[in-house]
Amino acid sequence: MTVRFAILGAGRIGQVHARAVASTPGATLVAISDPFADAAQKVSDQYGCDIRSIDDIAAASDVDAVAICTPTDTHANLIEQFAKAGKAIFCEKPVDLSVARVREALATVEAERATLMVGFNRRFDPDFMAAKAAIDNGSIGDVEMITITSRDPGAPPHDYIKVSGGIFRDMTIHDFDMARWLLGEEVETVQASASVLTDPKIGELSDFDSVNVILRTASGKQCVITNSRRATYGYDQRIEVLGSKGMVSARNMSEANIELAGTGGFTSPPLLNFFMTRYTAAYANEIAAFVAAVAEGAQTPTTGQDGLMALVLAEAALKSVAEGRVVKLSEIS
Amino acid sequence: MTVRFAILGAGRIGQVHARAVASTPGATLVAISDPFADAAQKVSDQYGCDIRSIDDIAAASDVDAVAICTPTDTHANLIEQFAKAGKAIFCEKPVDLSVARVREALATVEAERATLMVGFNRRFDPDFMAAKAAIDNGSIGDVEMITITSRDPGAPPHDYIKVSGGIFRDMTIHDFDMARWLLGEEVETVQASASVLTDPKIGELSDFDSVNVILRTASGKQCVITNSRRATYGYDQRIEVLGSKGMVSARNMSEANIELAGTGGFTSPPLLNFFMTRYTAAYANEIAAFVAAVAEGAQTPTTGQDGLMALVLAEAALKSVAEGRVVKLSEIS
Amino acid sequence: MTVRFAILGAGRIGQVHARAVASTPGATLVAISDPFADAAQKVSDQYGCDIRSIDDIAAASDVDAVAICTPTDTHANLIEQFAKAGKAIFCEKPVDLSVARVREALATVEAERATLMVGFNRRFDPDFMAAKAAIDNGSIGDVEMITITSRDPGAPPHDYIKVSGGIFRDMTIHDFDMARWLLGEEVETVQASASVLTDPKIGELSDFDSVNVILRTASGKQCVITNSRRATYGYDQRIEVLGSKGMVSARNMSEANIELAGTGGFTSPPLLNFFMTRYTAAYANEIAAFVAAVAEGAQTPTTGQDGLMALVLAEAALKSVAEGRVVKLSEIS
Amino acid sequence: MTVRFAILGAGRIGQVHARAVASTPGATLVAISDPFADAAQKVSDQYGCDIRSIDDIAAASDVDAVAICTPTDTHANLIEQFAKAGKAIFCEKPVDLSVARVREALATVEAERATLMVGFNRRFDPDFMAAKAAIDNGSIGDVEMITITSRDPGAPPHDYIKVSGGIFRDMTIHDFDMARWLLGEEVETVQASASVLTDPKIGELSDFDSVNVILRTASGKQCVITNSRRATYGYDQRIEVLGSKGMVSARNMSEANIELAGTGGFTSPPLLNFFMTRYTAAYANEIAAFVAAVAEGAQTPTTGQDGLMALVLAEAALKSVAEGRVVKLSEIS
Repeated sequence: MTVRFAILGAGRIGQVHARAVASTPGATLVAISDPFADAAQKVSDQYGCDIRSIDDIAAASDVDAVAICTPTDTHANLIEQFAKAGKAIFCEKPVDLSVARVREALATVEAERATLMVGFNRRFDPDFMAAKAAIDNGSIGDVEMITITSRDPGAPPHDYIKVSGGIFRDMTIHDFDMARWLLGEEVETVQASASVLTDPKIGELSDFDSVNVILRTASGKQCVITNSRRATYGYDQRIEVLGSKGMVSARNMSEANIELAGTGGFTSPPLLNFFMTRYTAAYANEIAAFVAAVAEGAQTPTTGQDGLMALVLAEAALKSVAEGRVVKLSEIS
Repeated sequence: MTVRFAILGAGRIGQVHARAVASTPGATLVAISDPFADAAQKVSDQYGCDIRSIDDIAAASDVDAVAICTPTDTHANLIEQFAKAGKAIFCEKPVDLSVARVREALATVEAERATLMVGFNRRFDPDFMAAKAAIDNGSIGDVEMITITSRDPGAPPHDYIKVSGGIFRDMTIHDFDMARWLLGEEVETVQASASVLTDPKIGELSDFDSVNVILRTASGKQCVITNSRRATYGYDQRIEVLGSKGMVSARNMSEANIELAGTGGFTSPPLLNFFMTRYTAAYANEIAAFVAAVAEGAQTPTTGQDGLMALVLAEAALKSVAEGRVVKLSEIS
Repeated sequence: MTVRFAILGAGRIGQVHARAVASTPGATLVAISDPFADAAQKVSDQYGCDIRSIDDIAAASDVDAVAICTPTDTHANLIEQFAKAGKAIFCEKPVDLSVARVREALATVEAERATLMVGFNRRFDPDFMAAKAAIDNGSIGDVEMITITSRDPGAPPHDYIKVSGGIFRDMTIHDFDMARWLLGEEVETVQASASVLTDPKIGELSDFDSVNVILRTASGKQCVITNSRRATYGYDQRIEVLGSKGMVSARNMSEANIELAGTGGFTSPPLLNFFMTRYTAAYANEIAAFVAAVAEGAQTPTTGQDGLMALVLAEAALKSVAEGRVVKLSEIS
Repeated sequence: MTVRFAILGAGRIGQVHARAVASTPGATLVAISDPFADAAQKVSDQYGCDIRSIDDIAAASDVDAVAICTPTDTHANLIEQFAKAGKAIFCEKPVDLSVARVREALATVEAERATLMVGFNRRFDPDFMAAKAAIDNGSIGDVEMITITSRDPGAPPHDYIKVSGGIFRDMTIHDFDMARWLLGEEVETVQASASVLTDPKIGELSDFDSVNVILRTASGKQCVITNSRRATYGYDQRIEVLGSKGMVSARNMSEANIELAGTGGFTSPPLLNFFMTRYTAAYANEIAAFVAAVAEGAQTPTTGQDGLMALVLAEAALKSVAEGRVVKLSEIS
């Protein structure tokens, strides 16, 4: 079976997924949709696909699956529309900034028995997958303590920050998902600390740029997440998992694997500093995994529930910062 | 001026300092004191120094300085005795397990205008010193976010744990001091999470073996400390400091700087797994710094106040765990 | 201009180049040719191109360029045929195993003013390109001493070795080209040492599996090449260039960028162990560079002369081993 | 038994060995000898030993062993004198610049059944020892191909070069010894290439500053040695041994084990750049090994024969450069 795709949204991430669909065996790109005609045209030209309206795509008999790459505030509505239309759905994170709205949309997905995969691309990074495989095959024994270091090269524009839902929902949300994936046990409590250190304007927008979070499961496993919106040396993305028998860690990716030696010492290039370059392989693997699940009628590797839980963790972290105390996930409704 | 030393306590750490004194130019070992005659004799034989009682050392005119290497519960008394006796004092951490008792002893030190250096050996590790120098010379700009990873190869004996004051006062105390040293600004609040993951017996003794702590200063700088009493791959001791212009990190020390390649990949040896081997150079530098300060009548690089503050941080961490909330240092009296 | 390609030979390397052509903007795959119908059909199915005979391709008006991926003994003839047919030619190394035959073919290329690029893929590896850029921008000053370490995971089949022309012409030839590229000055003399250490059968076939070569330019710059047909830890491909101001080195590529720590130490995965995986990016860059040169009518980054010189170096190395002495390139006719 | 030492020569290397003797359990420093009264006095003051003439030391009943740290042209004479005097002898490399003179001195040592250890300190470096141990315990299978990279931070003074015997006898000699130690089989042939690239004055003195050597054993094992008199990034000292089952390598030693990250990438400090700092542990281990052998009446780990063979290899390399051919060791008399 070839999975026939339409992509909703021809922006940056829509283009990433268009390329991934076009190069995945067993998938084909049928249509693109975007209110901006130029953006849609560009994707259409590049991959030879139709330009259609969202409603036409929902009604189309030659489309099996959609990738929702539109602005966040449209995600929940589109999920509901396409669940009802009987299409398999790949949706970029987050499903919505409101936990209640996410639950609502997921209820529709469930009622319609629709397929929904939420885009947590990092789970599909080859190095993180290799680390996870090492955990799963018992190489480090029981997981005990995790450290996730995740730093962006720089903050997004202020206008984006305004509508982003804040650092926990926008940036840490990826790390919350990684934490759940690596811990192998649901988080019970969250505590967090948040500062504005890189740009006072971010504080004026009621957001933070530097945060540390401690997650804890019922059995006492812990995970630390450390985030900053600024890392001059590139896109810093590391995980380190300590277990009863040892530790596994995944390292950063450099621009080039060379080293210069001179009177000042030994220098290697900065890290890849753009999420699309850093996670090229992850985006391709992610779409391939969605395609495989749709083709086989199998469970997708990430689900709407994963999208919900990451958002709940973000809410809990925000509440912890506001109230200066440990917050139980069960407090977030 | 040659600084004439007596060492109080001929146990493991006493022997470390005896060797350091014997090999430091400008210092000489005059006497050793220990209730166990054999232990004292061994040091005496090795370095050709006298065996004397503590009171004789306090009264001696040929002793300028003492190194207190006795059990923790004797430290405060000995500090007071030798402050009054006019000797320069090097005391192993902690000064005492009670904040109140530490304050009392420091009051005596102040009243007597005595010299007191508390033994936070890690500040004298060549790699950590190089990292600190990079911070001080502006290489990373303003310090923002610190991660200190500190894991012991294994837990101490249960009998030691019983009297240790708990992981925060016994193990994390080193990291608290490192954090203060690296942050360059006093900590204002502490939050911590603590589990028992490596040995249930540690929990039965009301202690923990796996902890994460977030420290925060008034300006919002943050430091995460992550500790475990078990690391199968050796003594894991790392620091990583993120600043506005970059990051500096100090790596671990291996048993040997070699690499084996084979069908299973590339393998390098485990870490040095004993604090005395790992910190050999640090212990030597520490005594040399004390000797230099005493000889020049200068301020010691670590003080009784540093000992107090590390203990206050430990108390705050403990309170945070007990009450599930952020604790201000000002709450600890 | 879109460069319209035909690929001659649908074997392993032909498939690599078919994929590269298909994914290079500005290039399109028009036809495949292979005496084995199944092999040709497979490429035709995958990329939707014609299956044609070699003569039809030579005569075709809709083909601008060919990639010669046939067995070595056909290369020279095909170069001559397609030079006369006015097609741009990309030819896999080596042009021929005989220096005289190569010179002959190159004479035809010159007479026809044809475009010929010989496939030295390593020059297009991103890490080696970054190292070369560092040399070219003066980071290491004047190049003085180079070490090229190149080891295959395992020897090719004995049947292949029989017709390969021997290790110098088959394997070291890549390193000879790298050496010329990095030295920035033609080699004047060669000396080599060759052993059979991994498989006696290779010796029975009058070949070697373990060789060291020292190349030397007129100004005294030197390059060491060290080769083995066996490296249990993967495909070992390193360069290291010492200059008057410093050194640049390019490291190996691992299967995954992770590290496992345990009682046995720290282990990272073996190297990528297949040339097509290791040099995926290089093959893509190589075709893109050829396409750009053809489209612009510019000089190709590697030429027939490069192919000739690498072969001459191989001959000189073989002569050095046979005669136990330093051989001048000028001795090879 | 305590081994009572006299040190002949109070220069730089004499001081290194004085410190090593003073800090080795089972050894004591009885006397120092040096024609320069100030130099001798300094050592005497530091370690509380006598100042004596060489003849007095030879006649002394309270001296068991001597360390010969005088200029090279006195080594052979002193070895003969002290062999006849019944003292155990530790002699710095080289024994002499003339192979014939070395053979003569060794004949006396043999006739007197004297103990002679030649100072090849690198065999006692902890990292190189760990690599050798990995070879000896079979971790890499049979040794096949070795690469020794050895580069000095800078050339010695021209006056020293004049009397040094040339780069092969002065610098490569250490690598020749390492090669023999690691190969585990005697070298049969040598070929070498030598240039002047860092300082034309070195050429005017008929010496070289940049050399590559290929050594080969009867069974075909090969070792490449690559030397330069200039490495701006410090004292570059690496070995890499490829075997049938894998590879072992020993890495360089940095000034500090830290890393700085910034917009320019990741930088770690240059290498330790002075042989006495780089090989501190090796010098201590070397004297300890000599002391142990003398105390137990055992064979020393390096012998006069090792000193001779390294010199023979140097002669062969020089002859290879002069004659442009492979030279058999058997040609060197």
